[in-house]
Amino acid sequence: MIIGGSASQKLAADIANILNEKLGNLEIKKFPDGEKYIRFNDDIEDEITIVQSTGYPQDENLIELFLIAKNLKSLGCKKVRAVIPYLAYSRQDKRFKKGEAISISIIANLIESSGIDEVITVNLHEEKIVEFFNIPVKNLSAMPLLAEYFKDIVNNPIVVAPDEGALQHAKEVAKILDCEYDYLKKKRISPDKVSTEIKEINVKNKDVILVDDIISTGGTIINASKILKNEKAKNIFVGCVHPVLVGDALMKIYLSGVKEIVGTDTLSSPISKVSVAPLLANTLK
Amino acid sequence: MIIGGSASQKLAADIANILNEKLGNLEIKKFPDGEKYIRFNDDIEDEITIVQSTGYPQDENLIELFLIAKNLKSLGCKKVRAVIPYLAYSRQDKRFKKGEAISISIIANLIESSGIDEVITVNLHEEKIVEFFNIPVKNLSAMPLLAEYFKDIVNNPIVVAPDEGALQHAKEVAKILDCEYDYLKKKRISPDKVSTEIKEINVKNKDVILVDDIISTGGTIINASKILKNEKAKNIFVGCVHPVLVGDALMKIYLSGVKEIVGTDTLSSPISKVSVAPLLANTLK
Repeated sequence: MIIGGSASQKLAADIANILNEKLGNLEIKKFPDGEKYIRFNDDIEDEITIVQSTGYPQDENLIELFLIAKNLKSLGCKKVRAVIPYLAYSRQDKRFKKGEAISISIIANLIESSGIDEVITVNLHEEKIVEFFNIPVKNLSAMPLLAEYFKDIVNNPIVVAPDEGALQHAKEVAKILDCEYDYLKKKRISPDKVSTEIKEINVKNKDVILVDDIISTGGTIINASKILKNEKAKNIFVGCVHPVLVGDALMKIYLSGVKEIVGTDTLSSPISKVSVAPLLANTLK
Repeated sequence: MIIGGSASQKLAADIANILNEKLGNLEIKKFPDGEKYIRFNDDIEDEITIVQSTGYPQDENLIELFLIAKNLKSLGCKKVRAVIPYLAYSRQDKRFKKGEAISISIIANLIESSGIDEVITVNLHEEKIVEFFNIPVKNLSAMPLLAEYFKDIVNNPIVVAPDEGALQHAKEVAKILDCEYDYLKKKRISPDKVSTEIKEINVKNKDVILVDDIISTGGTIINASKILKNEKAKNIFVGCVHPVLVGDALMKIYLSGVKEIVGTDTLSSPISKVSVAPLLANTLK
């Protein structure tokens, strides 16, 4: 049985459809004071999979996930799997400064404490986040799905990572599109000034696909798009797995000269056109 | 050392002042995407007390509490006490209907999992909530503080509980004011109609103090106030510990004929005039 938390109801239904599994009847509401109310309205089964992403509002979605999971356990479910397509707090994965909370390690601990036996997630910001968990974590990549999406709409493209951290993603997409890839390299030109340059290849008159795992404020992508425009790229496409898209990020990305931007449905957004349902269903079956 | 979460910064400072203890330097901010960031900017001590209420936004305040507590433990603190003046989800303390989450038991479990060693709270909705915890929980009553507040502003009062559930609170306040007390009794007058009546005593031309633990939408208090007006009460005062006050509750309470309503600072509100700081400080010393 698959059940969907309030952040991932469509995705849960899509996964249940693909697997031809039952979509469980979960009642979720909010009391006038803001507290969540959870009721499982089905016969309990030995194994149940919850689908709940943890984008904004992150803390509400997390607490809801904990309430759903622990309630299933208390009703007699033996194994609870949690599909968390986007895992909040993943970028707080080390103590950058003294005294900082390593938030994702704390969240990982709470996920386990809520009775979840296994986590399935998509493109964790860092693979090593898996090590914060003592339960099995499957970290899937949606990059091949983004590559398939672009296959029919680009001509002879180049895949570019907006920074070195995203190079692996560019490589993964380029392999499927059978094309070149590169990344934009930050170069310190004075103590407080950084310029960014294309490392090796020529984007002039070419279709460029910028890829990244997360787009939040859009700053990195906007900077990259401007550089590619300067280098006379023909069309700039953007693909990301997690479209966090804070505030007016999307508009600023279009204004920077991007022709099309696409994300997946790990998070709801106006650009969540690529579904990770087949990827998740394939892992769950 | 006392540190305050973002929901209880003034209360934490007040407690630290009374105890002449150090107020710890805790940095709390929100990233643009909505994730909280926690940094403890002081030297770690063996015992630290966090003050963090969990009113609206409940889930944010809870996750923040978990991040603060577990971070202190990870930095070497040996004993973390949490003062949670208002404990969210306390009214979801049983499975009223099949399949419902007993939310407070799940929250209790998460509080323990976050490394908190002891909880100090004020007027839990039900005393038996303490049993959901495996760590020591001190449940204090702020009713004497409310009684002291009213002492100087009422004449020969009667304390009335708006329903039978609040009778113990009325008794506690009446004892200090050395006056009578009663409660409003619900009486079913037809299968779908309930009337409420004063059980025994006469409120005519008297100052009445309505007391309850929580005022949320205000429905119970408004109903009680109208009945007391009908019974020709002279002045109606309202005292509550936790002023949750959803939406326009406060205005509707005043419109029902209440002369003055007062709450404590377990939650921030325009009527949080009575401070629980002395009560909490006395327990912490």
